[in-house]
Amino acid sequence: MIFSSKLIEDAVQEFAKLPGIGKKTALRMVLQLLKMEKPAVDGFTGALSRMRHEVQFCKVCNNVSDADVCVICANRSRNHSQVCVVENIRDVIAIESTQQFNGLYHVLGGILSPLDGIGPEQLYISSLHDRVRDNGVEELIMALSPTIEGDTTVYYIARQLKDLPVHITTIARGIAFGGELEYADEMTLARSIAKRLPIENYVSVQSKS
Amino acid sequence: MIFSSKLIEDAVQEFAKLPGIGKKTALRMVLQLLKMEKPAVDGFTGALSRMRHEVQFCKVCNNVSDADVCVICANRSRNHSQVCVVENIRDVIAIESTQQFNGLYHVLGGILSPLDGIGPEQLYISSLHDRVRDNGVEELIMALSPTIEGDTTVYYIARQLKDLPVHITTIARGIAFGGELEYADEMTLARSIAKRLPIENYVSVQSKS
Repeated sequence: MIFSSKLIEDAVQEFAKLPGIGKKTALRMVLQLLKMEKPAVDGFTGALSRMRHEVQFCKVCNNVSDADVCVICANRSRNHSQVCVVENIRDVIAIESTQQFNGLYHVLGGILSPLDGIGPEQLYISSLHDRVRDNGVEELIMALSPTIEGDTTVYYIARQLKDLPVHITTIARGIAFGGELEYADEMTLARSIAKRLPIENYVSVQSKS
Repeated sequence: MIFSSKLIEDAVQEFAKLPGIGKKTALRMVLQLLKMEKPAVDGFTGALSRMRHEVQFCKVCNNVSDADVCVICANRSRNHSQVCVVENIRDVIAIESTQQFNGLYHVLGGILSPLDGIGPEQLYISSLHDRVRDNGVEELIMALSPTIEGDTTVYYIARQLKDLPVHITTIARGIAFGGELEYADEMTLARSIAKRLPIENYVSVQSKS
């Protein structure tokens, strides 16, 4: 692409650095910003800049936060004895958006993946251990990806915490709501039959959602 | 979506105002920015802010420009007697990127569309008239969309300029290179047969690209 304005070219190149944004999409974004009023563009760039410079990571759970302890950990009405272990902050947003979980979180910052050079030291596992030991955590709900790396991480954490009196669970696997049986993979289908539930549970989950 | 950080939430909401960006994509962009180094994010927001505040519109052709006359109009080695009339700056970028056109441009800022309330006064048509009259323009190449509105605009401009000694042409319509005949619409196919070219022209266009 050949631009007759360096200002436009620079803006397009900066936009195209973002994931999934090609040159054409970047140009569309830049021309949209050019059409917007100047204060609206200042609002856009200001919000992004503030976010990057002011956001902190909660010193308890490593979630993104506006203060040194996040609003979830600081909320006295949540169940502090139940901690959901997730890979990243995107998972926290996903689970929070269901509005069905009232415990706290622990963000690992990734999952064990020796091929990518991610070992236990790269993740917030020892801080999880200390947190469980010192804060009276009774249940850890492991909500990691159902992959080999995810399962490995679950087993590793369970072994690290085996001397502590904490109950470790994992989220349920099965056929998704609205999912068609014929498109489910064999593993999921087989496990969803092996781990079948009494019909009363099914009804109570449905009425909750 | 429920966020535990107002800073993140604000940034996602600002991003989601851009065209074609939903909440999920906006979150992906924001988390990417969060991963980037602070100076890189400052580079991103700075380039967008500078673009919006400093970009000008060329007083000759209305193209985006870093000065009051754009680099295309200011370039003495280009053919100033040939002016390509386009709808918007995106078209200028598209034609410049072919590196095959050495004349100047005139950006109309839209095309006539009474249903959308766009009449001749909303477009840079009278400035085109003055430019053709005063600057020795010999040929106007109309490069507008092949729609009813585009054709109407071409006819309107031709009528406005009928007293001036300028040759008005339009870009060629036909089957695209690499396009399959069977997927071409009837109108295009019929016109591409009616306006068929001697084989020598075909070869010369091929070798140029």
